[in-house]
Amino acid sequence: MQRALGVCYYPEHWPEQQWADDARRMVEAGLTYVRIAEFAWARMEPKPGVYQWDWLDRAIETLAGAGLKVILGTPTTTPPRWMLDKWPDMLPVGRDGHVRKFGSRRHYCYSHRGYRDECATITLKMAERYGRDGRVHGWQLDNEYGNHTTTVSYSAAAREGFCQWLADKYRTIDALNEAWGNVFWSMEYDGFEQVDLPNRTVAEANPSHWLDFLRYSSDQVAEFNRVQSAVLRAHSDAPLIHNFMSKSTDFDHYKVAADLDIASWDSYPLGYLEKHSALGEAWIERYAQQGDPDFQAFHHDLYRAVGRGRWWIMEQQPGPVNWAVYNPAPLPGMPRLWAWEAFAHGAEAVCFFRWRQAPFAQEQMHAGLLRPDSADAPAMAEVQKVAAEMAALPEAGTARARVALVFDYQSVWAWQIQPQGKGFEYFNLVFDFYRAMRRLGLSIDIIAPDCPDLSQYDLVAMPGLMHVSDALQQALRAFGGTVIAGPRTGSKTEDFQIPAGLPPEMPGRICTVAHVESLRPGVSRPLSGGGAMRHWFEALETQAAVIDRLASGEPAIVAEDKVIYLAGWPDDEALQRVLETACAGEGIPTLRLSGGLRVRDSQTHRFVFNYGPDPALFEGQTIAVADVIWQDLPDTPTKEAN
Amino acid sequence: MQRALGVCYYPEHWPEQQWADDARRMVEAGLTYVRIAEFAWARMEPKPGVYQWDWLDRAIETLAGAGLKVILGTPTTTPPRWMLDKWPDMLPVGRDGHVRKFGSRRHYCYSHRGYRDECATITLKMAERYGRDGRVHGWQLDNEYGNHTTTVSYSAAAREGFCQWLADKYRTIDALNEAWGNVFWSMEYDGFEQVDLPNRTVAEANPSHWLDFLRYSSDQVAEFNRVQSAVLRAHSDAPLIHNFMSKSTDFDHYKVAADLDIASWDSYPLGYLEKHSALGEAWIERYAQQGDPDFQAFHHDLYRAVGRGRWWIMEQQPGPVNWAVYNPAPLPGMPRLWAWEAFAHGAEAVCFFRWRQAPFAQEQMHAGLLRPDSADAPAMAEVQKVAAEMAALPEAGTARARVALVFDYQSVWAWQIQPQGKGFEYFNLVFDFYRAMRRLGLSIDIIAPDCPDLSQYDLVAMPGLMHVSDALQQALRAFGGTVIAGPRTGSKTEDFQIPAGLPPEMPGRICTVAHVESLRPGVSRPLSGGGAMRHWFEALETQAAVIDRLASGEPAIVAEDKVIYLAGWPDDEALQRVLETACAGEGIPTLRLSGGLRVRDSQTHRFVFNYGPDPALFEGQTIAVADVIWQDLPDTPTKEAN
Amino acid sequence: MQRALGVCYYPEHWPEQQWADDARRMVEAGLTYVRIAEFAWARMEPKPGVYQWDWLDRAIETLAGAGLKVILGTPTTTPPRWMLDKWPDMLPVGRDGHVRKFGSRRHYCYSHRGYRDECATITLKMAERYGRDGRVHGWQLDNEYGNHTTTVSYSAAAREGFCQWLADKYRTIDALNEAWGNVFWSMEYDGFEQVDLPNRTVAEANPSHWLDFLRYSSDQVAEFNRVQSAVLRAHSDAPLIHNFMSKSTDFDHYKVAADLDIASWDSYPLGYLEKHSALGEAWIERYAQQGDPDFQAFHHDLYRAVGRGRWWIMEQQPGPVNWAVYNPAPLPGMPRLWAWEAFAHGAEAVCFFRWRQAPFAQEQMHAGLLRPDSADAPAMAEVQKVAAEMAALPEAGTARARVALVFDYQSVWAWQIQPQGKGFEYFNLVFDFYRAMRRLGLSIDIIAPDCPDLSQYDLVAMPGLMHVSDALQQALRAFGGTVIAGPRTGSKTEDFQIPAGLPPEMPGRICTVAHVESLRPGVSRPLSGGGAMRHWFEALETQAAVIDRLASGEPAIVAEDKVIYLAGWPDDEALQRVLETACAGEGIPTLRLSGGLRVRDSQTHRFVFNYGPDPALFEGQTIAVADVIWQDLPDTPTKEAN
Repeated sequence: MQRALGVCYYPEHWPEQQWADDARRMVEAGLTYVRIAEFAWARMEPKPGVYQWDWLDRAIETLAGAGLKVILGTPTTTPPRWMLDKWPDMLPVGRDGHVRKFGSRRHYCYSHRGYRDECATITLKMAERYGRDGRVHGWQLDNEYGNHTTTVSYSAAAREGFCQWLADKYRTIDALNEAWGNVFWSMEYDGFEQVDLPNRTVAEANPSHWLDFLRYSSDQVAEFNRVQSAVLRAHSDAPLIHNFMSKSTDFDHYKVAADLDIASWDSYPLGYLEKHSALGEAWIERYAQQGDPDFQAFHHDLYRAVGRGRWWIMEQQPGPVNWAVYNPAPLPGMPRLWAWEAFAHGAEAVCFFRWRQAPFAQEQMHAGLLRPDSADAPAMAEVQKVAAEMAALPEAGTARARVALVFDYQSVWAWQIQPQGKGFEYFNLVFDFYRAMRRLGLSIDIIAPDCPDLSQYDLVAMPGLMHVSDALQQALRAFGGTVIAGPRTGSKTEDFQIPAGLPPEMPGRICTVAHVESLRPGVSRPLSGGGAMRHWFEALETQAAVIDRLASGEPAIVAEDKVIYLAGWPDDEALQRVLETACAGEGIPTLRLSGGLRVRDSQTHRFVFNYGPDPALFEGQTIAVADVIWQDLPDTPTKEAN
Repeated sequence: MQRALGVCYYPEHWPEQQWADDARRMVEAGLTYVRIAEFAWARMEPKPGVYQWDWLDRAIETLAGAGLKVILGTPTTTPPRWMLDKWPDMLPVGRDGHVRKFGSRRHYCYSHRGYRDECATITLKMAERYGRDGRVHGWQLDNEYGNHTTTVSYSAAAREGFCQWLADKYRTIDALNEAWGNVFWSMEYDGFEQVDLPNRTVAEANPSHWLDFLRYSSDQVAEFNRVQSAVLRAHSDAPLIHNFMSKSTDFDHYKVAADLDIASWDSYPLGYLEKHSALGEAWIERYAQQGDPDFQAFHHDLYRAVGRGRWWIMEQQPGPVNWAVYNPAPLPGMPRLWAWEAFAHGAEAVCFFRWRQAPFAQEQMHAGLLRPDSADAPAMAEVQKVAAEMAALPEAGTARARVALVFDYQSVWAWQIQPQGKGFEYFNLVFDFYRAMRRLGLSIDIIAPDCPDLSQYDLVAMPGLMHVSDALQQALRAFGGTVIAGPRTGSKTEDFQIPAGLPPEMPGRICTVAHVESLRPGVSRPLSGGGAMRHWFEALETQAAVIDRLASGEPAIVAEDKVIYLAGWPDDEALQRVLETACAGEGIPTLRLSGGLRVRDSQTHRFVFNYGPDPALFEGQTIAVADVIWQDLPDTPTKEAN
Repeated sequence: MQRALGVCYYPEHWPEQQWADDARRMVEAGLTYVRIAEFAWARMEPKPGVYQWDWLDRAIETLAGAGLKVILGTPTTTPPRWMLDKWPDMLPVGRDGHVRKFGSRRHYCYSHRGYRDECATITLKMAERYGRDGRVHGWQLDNEYGNHTTTVSYSAAAREGFCQWLADKYRTIDALNEAWGNVFWSMEYDGFEQVDLPNRTVAEANPSHWLDFLRYSSDQVAEFNRVQSAVLRAHSDAPLIHNFMSKSTDFDHYKVAADLDIASWDSYPLGYLEKHSALGEAWIERYAQQGDPDFQAFHHDLYRAVGRGRWWIMEQQPGPVNWAVYNPAPLPGMPRLWAWEAFAHGAEAVCFFRWRQAPFAQEQMHAGLLRPDSADAPAMAEVQKVAAEMAALPEAGTARARVALVFDYQSVWAWQIQPQGKGFEYFNLVFDFYRAMRRLGLSIDIIAPDCPDLSQYDLVAMPGLMHVSDALQQALRAFGGTVIAGPRTGSKTEDFQIPAGLPPEMPGRICTVAHVESLRPGVSRPLSGGGAMRHWFEALETQAAVIDRLASGEPAIVAEDKVIYLAGWPDDEALQRVLETACAGEGIPTLRLSGGLRVRDSQTHRFVFNYGPDPALFEGQTIAVADVIWQDLPDTPTKEAN
């Protein structure tokens, strides 16, 4: 595995005479990669069918000439204005039924066939010109699929596509009626063409209807991506990449990435702390200038799985951004810390967004490595420091994780559709497990819900997994380690029905969920062993050993044959106890990391990060605020992870 | 009066071979009634004009054969998908102007004439087949009128109907302009056809415009219901029933029920605590698994009035439901307690919803008496216990109430239109009075605002009653007991204008409201006697005795000739004082029930309920959590209530 | 300067036989002006082209005959219903794309040319009839421009007008693309007709696109007003007036008032406290019955600038109103206090809204000087008292202010478009400065952002001023006093780009803003000197003297050559310190007014107001709650203000 730094650059935004100097300074800063062109369609094809490549030729020449490796983006996230004259119905439609207009970006509906053809054509034109160009070291397809809530569109194109998708899936309308349980409220259809999109119904639509529509919508992203990947594969050997996002769950990233070589993601720790943290005001205030201590790591591990081992940071926040509710500056040191956290998790590249802050348009308040006046912004010195440290530190592969955590996009949709209690978010449930594991100092693999082989792990957790796939069932049967499941694991069939034998439908069934409760924030179910279940509690029937009970006596955690089932959503205290005990049972060593301290091992080193606002002690050593240190690891682990 | 238990059942959801066993278990559980068919239109008429009755024939045969009495529902709440091909414009339209689509239930606009004809036809077909069938012991018309905010629709059909309704009411456009005060902002119309629906105006629409539109919308529900009742009356002698809902105020239930024989309502104590309680987080947390101690009782008394003495619970929550924000489980004992609370208030039947939890579609997380795997759910044992207790306890009629509380749908609409201060909700005001009365151990009658005879009562309260009707004025003049009025009582003419002589326009005028104030939650007006007025305060001119004043001197409670006027919305302390004093003046005995204890008398027994989360003492006897006990009453009250 | 009282009256609302008595009572109460007719279009022109003036002739005759001076309103805020049959597309369209319907008022789109013609015609008809009528002492054009969020309309007319406005401004589409930076996301246009309105875009629209659209929308108000002012100028010498509103910032009031003679505004202290206060619950509760102590004064000073010295209160709240979230009554004394606060700031007239409370339509709960039954409402006695006091107190001109505060409408729009942190509202920033100045006892001038002459001032503050105009740059270069700037002052070019040399772009540049941070409410940046920066902080590079630093060392307040730059939004403590020091430097005397005490000087008197809920001490004298006193001033200041 090679490690490298990079940057996102927009030659079209700057006078051409500035390009050479920019390229020189990039190289001097220690950057290797430069991503360009992903928003430049209007400059590549200013009129329909009229292409202008000369500026892009010169930009590539200048950048590569300075020693940089070019990543070329297809510009399909920003169709030019003239495209709307050709395809007036290509715009996405919101859940409220309103067309979403031109004037920013991502103004297309994934289901629109005409637009897909346009994307194939512009990709082909680029591929023909640059596909065998040795200066182009990778392709980025489109940009941030699904951003701005665009995965799901309620357009006419989407409806038409959905009806066809249903016909392909169910073959007969009776099969659909049966799978959805449409008898319930006389919702039975006589033909596929009668099925409408599930928005704006009088009462809530059938959850099976919703789930199929969200699956359809997710599939459109994969198909849209495949149009471009097919063209590029035919004309280029450079790796195909997409820049995914954080807490982006509207489509199945595993499926989209199946047609890619590298998964990358865009990491904005401060913006996403503001936007996504479920941990409350005090937590956000504490980490306002550092970012959540586990959120980046979670996505590093997720995209390592999505990329089948190969992953990048395509956009790394360098300073204050413009789009969060509040936009503070990172503490000095954080950009360096973020970069090292990524490398410790096995990133091949960390690219900063963006080279120079633009003085115009939507992102003029978004920091870059340079200020708009071309002076160095604060992050530049950190980039240089990381580059120097990288040169000194021998590279090493990703550590073998003994602990695996299942992350499943379909389960996100299922519990969005049927939270049963406000605030039941699958992402937050899995992330609670992840955070608890990470506070124990564990290195974690995130795995897909159809993982066919668990043999490298000693512990697998799959909280909230809506449906246990056949592949996972088989892997679980072969698995010799400890499994942690519940709440809601295996609680639905693929059709979004309650299994005939009641949940949890999974191997080694050790209990039956008789009924469930969702709980207000002010209500919880205290455990005899300390801590509590909150948000959710399930009444279990079981013959298994009861590991913990409610204070009122009901079984809350049960176990048998190394399968542990949790009858609720444990708070931090309960979760730590469960995980520590399970790790001890498997001989997995754990730590108790306090405050903002976090650890991640590579094959050769243990990296220690301090995300807290105060210096912290780790094994007798003081770690400064926003600092990262590394220690040699004993060379026991040898097998490289996927 | 006979008491019985029942259940809601959906034969179309289950394999036919299961029906007989289900019927047998129903009877064994002590159930008498079984309601069926109200969502099954697609199975009765799978194609336009093609009817299939065989399955329903067999279902009735099986159920009645086991000894059950069938209640047959007309399926008009769930028109099949093909109906939209006939009547594409029958869908309801939301206040935002968007059509509300097919895919759940209640997808019809009450104003649509074509759909009314369809309803008449399917009702006729059912009536012809089952109208004289002795196994059918009652009819439920449609299901939960107004649920999912469907009473008021902003469709083209609604506009057309509204214009005609206005023409019928006002005869000349000048009369309308005068009644509405349209001179105010040059809003005068030249013809009825110019009047649009009052949604989406630039500033707020004229309150008289709104009130007439809400009256019109309410009338459509009554007309819609009358279409079916007329058909059924012509073909059946079985009683006509509708299942109303709680805190359902968008139409005038008295008017709809005028064409019915029995009012029933669907009681979901936990779901409605979450959805409707105005009493704050701590209250909801305290009663999360029991339901509000007064909310069910209020509706029992309300629907006894709506049903002119005859009323049922058509759907009783048996366990956790699926549709509230949070869905905890009832404490063990609560389903039994709820059933006895209903019987103590004079219910003829309590039917549980539903027999077996469905594993599919929208309500798969809604508990039943059986689990999806057909095992008994927890409520089953409680049903059996109630059945056994009923057999042992002699039946008795409804106690004569000495206290009456006016509830008026039109006043709900008036103060929705013109709250004058956020949070002024008529329902909550009346419910505050109800709760205070019930904490005093009173048995209460709720009465309609056009009640022509008050002679059975000693105390009548009518807080917030927008307009005192001629009928009520006459009854009040004849009344010898104590009247409690205000705030806002008699503050508008029927046209929604301020009365020429200023409020309160009611008999025995004892004061004049010079002006009013609405108050922020953090602001109140303390009373000299303790407690405070909150939300609302009126500056009074009066010659009457001042019973209580603000600390600052202004009259706050005034009285003369047994009429008491409250110049504001009293808090609990003030309200208790006023009611205790008034009861004492009339010789009505009161208790002071603490915590979750509540009392209701039948003609022969006093029932005592403990809704609190802890055991409670009542006259030296400990009542367990979620328990109900009964005591013999001295046989003084003899007259049965209406 | 003459001072007078007045009232708003609607003869069309009352029987004609009542008019004479009303007029007599107005005169007896000490009123001089009566404003009429602004909502009466349907009575002036009941059918298209059919005019009825007789009633208005008689109303004017009656009122003027009693000795009152008539202000005549054009009725264009309330086009009659028949207008929609002529111009169905004249209705405004909301940001959500929905047409806003007839049924209240202001149901027109400023961009609609047909409606402008209708307005010209009705104005002409009125001008021809009453333009030279000596009984008409002024004209009010339309009513409350922009109320009910009507300035910005998303109609087809608006789009068409906007495209033309852009073509006029930019001449070539390339110039527009360059100014907006449309290269950013391939947003480049090929022609002006391609530009759509910036609502409902997929991601946020370009801020330059938004700013131009808001400028366009503001210009339409000015053009709309100019249509009427041109007609009236040609037919009348009476002054032209518009009644503006408080915290009304959607259009540039300076530009609209350029075609008027007098600016007036509608002052509702209690309603606007509820609606607009950014100071939190406790503040609103404390001043619930008095109004914010500085809000009215701010607008007095603002509209004195807008009216170029001549200004009125056209509508003064007399008691509880109907339209705020909560509507309490003013404390006794407040209407008198409000009137004197206005006169102390130089108002020529204070007119109360309205004469008699209407018992019908939208504002039936809005108090007047009379109750609906024609009895005196509480405010009547206060009006009479003010009238008597005015007679006794010699009139005097507006005091010369030594302190000026820039208020710029465009900056409101800029930071609405780009708050960068939630809650960054330009109005609140400027109002924080105003309040701090007023607590120091200063008399303040508000000035426009293109003020060409600052010579009368010793201190000028211009916080948050997006762009420093050429005129102001020139004035600042000539200015000898102290300038206080920042945060965000001079941070954008006119095109809404970051200036090439980085902010602040203003004369005497003393620092460079390297980057900015927006801060959560729970996060602030404490200052070494006490207090803190909150909401916002800027990293400065500077050679100037550092007056105050963050506790962490970064410069926070810098100064050089009497220019002070604030690197953040100061809290009250920091702002008081900065302003006191600056005033001391210029020899401007300051007070420290505690609680609700406020002061304003006229040329001859010092007025002292107590807005607090308790009596307060001022220089040894006790000021009662809701009281105002006045003291002779030493006659040093002699020059009358603009």
